[in-house]
Amino acid sequence: MSNETDKQKFDRLFPFIRQYQDLAKKYNIKDIFQDNGGKYLQLLMILGLTTDGTREGNDAVDAAGNEYEIKTVNAELTDQFSTHHHMNPAIIAKYRQVDWYFAVFRNIELQVIYRLKPAHMELYYEKWEKKWHTDGKKDINNPKIPLTHVMRYGELIWLPEGVSNFVRPGIFKRISASRTKRFDADDLFAT
Amino acid sequence: MSNETDKQKFDRLFPFIRQYQDLAKKYNIKDIFQDNGGKYLQLLMILGLTTDGTREGNDAVDAAGNEYEIKTVNAELTDQFSTHHHMNPAIIAKYRQVDWYFAVFRNIELQVIYRLKPAHMELYYEKWEKKWHTDGKKDINNPKIPLTHVMRYGELIWLPEGVSNFVRPGIFKRISASRTKRFDADDLFAT
Repeated sequence: MSNETDKQKFDRLFPFIRQYQDLAKKYNIKDIFQDNGGKYLQLLMILGLTTDGTREGNDAVDAAGNEYEIKTVNAELTDQFSTHHHMNPAIIAKYRQVDWYFAVFRNIELQVIYRLKPAHMELYYEKWEKKWHTDGKKDINNPKIPLTHVMRYGELIWLPEGVSNFVRPGIFKRISASRTKRFDADDLFAT
Repeated sequence: MSNETDKQKFDRLFPFIRQYQDLAKKYNIKDIFQDNGGKYLQLLMILGLTTDGTREGNDAVDAAGNEYEIKTVNAELTDQFSTHHHMNPAIIAKYRQVDWYFAVFRNIELQVIYRLKPAHMELYYEKWEKKWHTDGKKDINNPKIPLTHVMRYGELIWLPEGVSNFVRPGIFKRISASRTKRFDADDLFAT
């Protein structure tokens, strides 16, 4: 198939994309091409979770009814997990009730999943609450959780077949080194 | 394959997803699962455009070097196209130089592509400029362009094979009807 044109390749592949979207729909993911929908499908299946599709796609429930927060990062682009664009005490109160799954991708390829208990998230909750009150009760725009923290305190849940441990790509060392000077607070737990 | 488990289905399909991502990479789309990447791949191929991948993924260039703005909408969710989260005179000046392609999807399925010339975008540019100055030079958060305007003034560029015209899904009539009462300005050109 090496002499296929791009258009022929597209036409050959799109029926499989449709099947992938059909599978995603079973998990209430309406659009695999938005908001990491195609990645959440993989995560929900691995973790045995479902989602009702009404929230932002990063909340999920297991068979026993326990809720989880799920976050993804593209390790090719950053070494920190995004959280919420309007962080405030109400959101934090909800977060305190659940475990978090953190999934690291390199583009679309899943590299590792970690799980963090509330006790290992608490210092961020306290930091955010303090900042929210200090800043005149203004919602915080997307505070980050460093991958280094997740790797240090998280339970390793999943690795690709045949892979025995997760190694941070080299880019992180460079980013951390340059960032330490400017953003001490964010690097509180960076190695 | 009807007795496949979801996981088996996922494992069978993911190699094709990888091929689709490889094809997208040729078009500088790093992640098909974010920001409609998988949809832009289809649009760029149909329209014979390329993108350098450095901007937000909705700017593209043809073989002659002409630039285009590309917008997509999921017709299952809304009947208006998003534009830019920080609209201001600098962005508008750039927009005035280019034609726009508007693509309508139903979830991941492309339904139609229209092309609009600057002359048929100008009334929005003027409206946004006026609002920006009136509101104390504050960037406008994502002003919308109604699909009805695109359908009325746009040149029809593409339809699926065997389809002879584009019909708005019924949902639009309901949305427009309920919205007219509340948002007159936005419905300036709604039918």
